[in-house]
Amino acid sequence: MVRRETDPVKLLAAAQAGDRSAIARLISMVERGGVPAGDVSRLTWPAARLASLIGLTGAPGAGKSTLTNMLVRHVRDKGERVAVLAIDPSSPFTNGAILGDRVRMQDHATDDGVFIRSMATRGQVGGLALATPEAARVLAAAGYPTVLIETVGVGQVEVEIAGAADTTVVVVNPGWGDAVQANKAGLLEVADVFVINKADRPGVAEVHRDLEAMLDMHVAPGPWRPPIVEAIAARGEGAAAVWEAIDAHRAHMVETGELARRQAKRAAAEVREIVVRTIEAKAVALLNSEKGAALTARVTDGSIDPHAAAGTILRDLEA
Amino acid sequence: MVRRETDPVKLLAAAQAGDRSAIARLISMVERGGVPAGDVSRLTWPAARLASLIGLTGAPGAGKSTLTNMLVRHVRDKGERVAVLAIDPSSPFTNGAILGDRVRMQDHATDDGVFIRSMATRGQVGGLALATPEAARVLAAAGYPTVLIETVGVGQVEVEIAGAADTTVVVVNPGWGDAVQANKAGLLEVADVFVINKADRPGVAEVHRDLEAMLDMHVAPGPWRPPIVEAIAARGEGAAAVWEAIDAHRAHMVETGELARRQAKRAAAEVREIVVRTIEAKAVALLNSEKGAALTARVTDGSIDPHAAAGTILRDLEA
Repeated sequence: MVRRETDPVKLLAAAQAGDRSAIARLISMVERGGVPAGDVSRLTWPAARLASLIGLTGAPGAGKSTLTNMLVRHVRDKGERVAVLAIDPSSPFTNGAILGDRVRMQDHATDDGVFIRSMATRGQVGGLALATPEAARVLAAAGYPTVLIETVGVGQVEVEIAGAADTTVVVVNPGWGDAVQANKAGLLEVADVFVINKADRPGVAEVHRDLEAMLDMHVAPGPWRPPIVEAIAARGEGAAAVWEAIDAHRAHMVETGELARRQAKRAAAEVREIVVRTIEAKAVALLNSEKGAALTARVTDGSIDPHAAAGTILRDLEA
Repeated sequence: MVRRETDPVKLLAAAQAGDRSAIARLISMVERGGVPAGDVSRLTWPAARLASLIGLTGAPGAGKSTLTNMLVRHVRDKGERVAVLAIDPSSPFTNGAILGDRVRMQDHATDDGVFIRSMATRGQVGGLALATPEAARVLAAAGYPTVLIETVGVGQVEVEIAGAADTTVVVVNPGWGDAVQANKAGLLEVADVFVINKADRPGVAEVHRDLEAMLDMHVAPGPWRPPIVEAIAARGEGAAAVWEAIDAHRAHMVETGELARRQAKRAAAEVREIVVRTIEAKAVALLNSEKGAALTARVTDGSIDPHAAAGTILRDLEA
């Protein structure tokens, strides 16, 4: 039996030479976090930090996977390489990988210019927020300069991840209330491009009008107003228009310096996230120690409150 | 103009005397976090730490609000007081409060035995995980011993919040794939009771069978197997059966000591969360300092990577 390679330098070299299992292994390392994730991140940062990240998000059932699939095909038709990171809220106990929309992606299974990966996360809330950009950089470093990041547009972490791309595409459907739901989920603020998918269904004009009204209400008048593009991804219709809107947004960002600002903001957010995760691991270790267990017991029996216990832990962390 | 009361001791006394605006103000304080949130939490902890928390979660559109509404009526009919915390993924820029399902809750607007509140959170991922139990304790301390916590069952933070109740009710609908979706979202592991809502629609037997199959596959054989209850909340049907299942689960937990274990686990999680939030605030302050900005600039230009920058910040935090 061959020993599994764990050296990120060797794995990255293999990944760049076209070894797909090496890419998968590097992504698993960033998913697990800790020191190996740091090593991988350190390695990919210099070259891949400016990779083009495109977020796709929307409610469950909006057809995000189908749209992603269509865009992958469009990019491939232009002869460019492209990768997909699909973020599923995953279970702490199971692998969470039940057959679903992802099956469709098998269309590209034999195409070396496409790499598709579902991200899993265990336990820790927020792990995804760090692992997703790190995984995107693995893909960029391995020769996939464009990474589509598909997340469900419900949930704090998920919306934040989608919004941390260069360009965020929010997918809605015709039907009363869809624009309202998108707004409620916080998607309006992160949207750079809206796609009305399933545009062969009734209600396109209404959702269009609702989105425009919400943009009028909420978006501070600025140089970029998110365009609203229609698509019927299931039939492959609208890919060029969606991609054109994404390209236009990127060109606008380059021109105005917004792209550099977003990249800087993401870098700062990543530093913060690493700091927080590291401290969290230390705090958990302290809580699981004998002293921590005694402290928790006193919280549980009501003799001290959680803030008092946290104060004790914080003093220990700083000591 | 009257100066707004900000003393949590006075506010809690007012809340206990029936002043609803005092309750609202206390909850706003825990939502905003920081020192005032700690003061409120400290105050409510001793008496309210054992409040009965019931989580209701499920996909958007599953009818969680309607079910909550029905359960509120059921509890009121028994003469008990009850509160609801509705967790909406809220926007960092807007109030995120668009008219929606919540309107229905106005049924109880004139009933003093019911308190309903939507939770908002700004910016920081994870703020909700701390603010929700703190808000529940405000409600318990103010005379609402049972708190229903309704969250959308999609998203890491949201599933975690729902799962941090004494009893978690997962709401699904008839229709192919609903059980699969619930499993994908990580709801199977947090479910203590399943409710098949909208049980007048076709497909009840199928979703029932799917849930049973998934329970067979995934749930470690233990003393509690989540019952599956049917309801048609929009017509008020099934309240007694759902509430009976919740009561049975609680009785089981008391008997086996599981309730105390869950409460202890929640207390430990809360301590950890406070530690992490506090450190996060310090890290953000460091990152926003002159030194932090210089560090971030070096990350952005690629001369150092985020992990190296985080290492510097961590050394400063411990100094």
